[in-house]
Amino acid sequence: MTPTTSGRGPDVVALGGGHGLAASLSALRHLTDRLTAVVTVADDGGSSGRLRREFGVLPPGDLRMALSALCDDSEWGLLWRDVLQHRFASAGALHDHALGNLLIVTLWELLDDPVSGLDWVARLLGARGRVLPMAAVPLDIEATVLGIDPDDPSGLTTVRGQVAVATTPGRVIGVQLSPNDPPARPEVLAAVRDADWAVLGPGSWYTSVLPHLLVPELARALSRTDARICLTLNLGQQPGETDGFSPENHLEVLAAHAPDLRLDAVLVDPSQIEDEASLNRVAESMGAVVVARDVAIGDGTPRHDPLLLAAAYRDLFSGAIDLNR
Amino acid sequence: MTPTTSGRGPDVVALGGGHGLAASLSALRHLTDRLTAVVTVADDGGSSGRLRREFGVLPPGDLRMALSALCDDSEWGLLWRDVLQHRFASAGALHDHALGNLLIVTLWELLDDPVSGLDWVARLLGARGRVLPMAAVPLDIEATVLGIDPDDPSGLTTVRGQVAVATTPGRVIGVQLSPNDPPARPEVLAAVRDADWAVLGPGSWYTSVLPHLLVPELARALSRTDARICLTLNLGQQPGETDGFSPENHLEVLAAHAPDLRLDAVLVDPSQIEDEASLNRVAESMGAVVVARDVAIGDGTPRHDPLLLAAAYRDLFSGAIDLNR
Repeated sequence: MTPTTSGRGPDVVALGGGHGLAASLSALRHLTDRLTAVVTVADDGGSSGRLRREFGVLPPGDLRMALSALCDDSEWGLLWRDVLQHRFASAGALHDHALGNLLIVTLWELLDDPVSGLDWVARLLGARGRVLPMAAVPLDIEATVLGIDPDDPSGLTTVRGQVAVATTPGRVIGVQLSPNDPPARPEVLAAVRDADWAVLGPGSWYTSVLPHLLVPELARALSRTDARICLTLNLGQQPGETDGFSPENHLEVLAAHAPDLRLDAVLVDPSQIEDEASLNRVAESMGAVVVARDVAIGDGTPRHDPLLLAAAYRDLFSGAIDLNR
Repeated sequence: MTPTTSGRGPDVVALGGGHGLAASLSALRHLTDRLTAVVTVADDGGSSGRLRREFGVLPPGDLRMALSALCDDSEWGLLWRDVLQHRFASAGALHDHALGNLLIVTLWELLDDPVSGLDWVARLLGARGRVLPMAAVPLDIEATVLGIDPDDPSGLTTVRGQVAVATTPGRVIGVQLSPNDPPARPEVLAAVRDADWAVLGPGSWYTSVLPHLLVPELARALSRTDARICLTLNLGQQPGETDGFSPENHLEVLAAHAPDLRLDAVLVDPSQIEDEASLNRVAESMGAVVVARDVAIGDGTPRHDPLLLAAAYRDLFSGAIDLNR
């Protein structure tokens, strides 16, 4: 009862969370059906946070969003995607719950296995690939934050919870997971091991991208895999998390949290580059070539264009871009 | 986008609500794929009542139960039936909501049409037939109740709402709908017009069976159709609603609320018959032959056995039982 991860295209695993991962999947679905999304499970806000507290389950929201991004492009697939993405709006108890979150929790309660519940949603959507949770248990993100107290700009505070971290007034200088050695799912480790390519990012740097490298088994799998690894940088900075970060700062933060991580490519929109030589140097220190490609949607918002991003990945995956410079 | 009401078997429309209708459908699905369930929409209790108040929609619960009773008998159909029937249990806001109710409300909000929303659920389940609401708007049942006040045993009180009516300490002597002339759905009127057989009951007499006869357009369609009509009586009496009712009392109440109703068959389990001659007389006054068949599940509970009930309907529909005595 596993959805299609066979078929056309290279074997790709995409790691991330939230809207960043959805953007990544919206591009990758154009290139392959052998696609596995690995999704952070540390959300504690909104509908997901309420469900996590009410039922003790993994937060379903980012998993739902990833599944929706992979839906079959048919009347059937699009209808059930819209059903999953639908949010109730009322003055009552259901306000702001996404139906897909409730459906996923139901499948988890019925089947008692997160992965097989997600596989059934994938089948419902005719999804082009599979969606898996980054860890087998719900996680919390804890951040070390600098200068929350304006009277003590060099003071450090520990902030707990994805929402709190993403909205902290201070500057995040490091994150860890709680629990700090969560079990990974064997399906995730196998997907990383067997992939041709792993794609990390874009997404909220500290709360959607970095957490994957903080699950010890997953970080080990990423450092040992024969898959090529592409890190895709964000368009723009994220207030609180990455204000004032250059592309090389993004890489440095990653390297500081995952010293064993080796990259093959760093995909970046030229608009983001401030100092090309510096970026090349930092990328090279992690084993990677910088691939500068226009991938922004072009309307001034910091969003990736699915087809331009797909074109960049196609050229990477096909070898048209030389990674051995 | 209409689910199958073509295929093998006679064209049957089944009217009712709640567990009674589910029992009826569990039998009829063995005989035909050309099956339309018409479901009361006056529930105001539980998950349905909460959704009705929060979103102003038709109460989805009895519709969900009817759809579930028609699910395809495959791994896919049974899984999605279990998902629809799943009830959350928690100390929180979702407690006791059935996921299927939330799914149906979502489809109604997305598609803005109750019938097409239900048709999509039917497709999801691979349902053997179609499920339609008795009326196009949510209804309330109002009952005239005798002797609620023990000090005034002949006093009459009006009780409003399905839950209140089903649990009143007095004796229900008549019901009406509010609004009292609700619009029917054209799909329902067409199903009644085109059917070979219409099956009314079993079910809560005043709150699931009678209400169909109080929707003026639906009552007219039932009195004008060329379809044969079978009334299937309950096994046992329902506290509050039908204590002390003989089978002929059930018929008399129906005739009092729907003077134009003509029946062809009254299906009754022999265990329920108290005075055979009297029952025959009342049935005959409504145009019907009494068909006494063992249809109880046989464990002492007042439930119909799906296969025995199917056998009785088969013999009725095939003409093996003579209705012209």
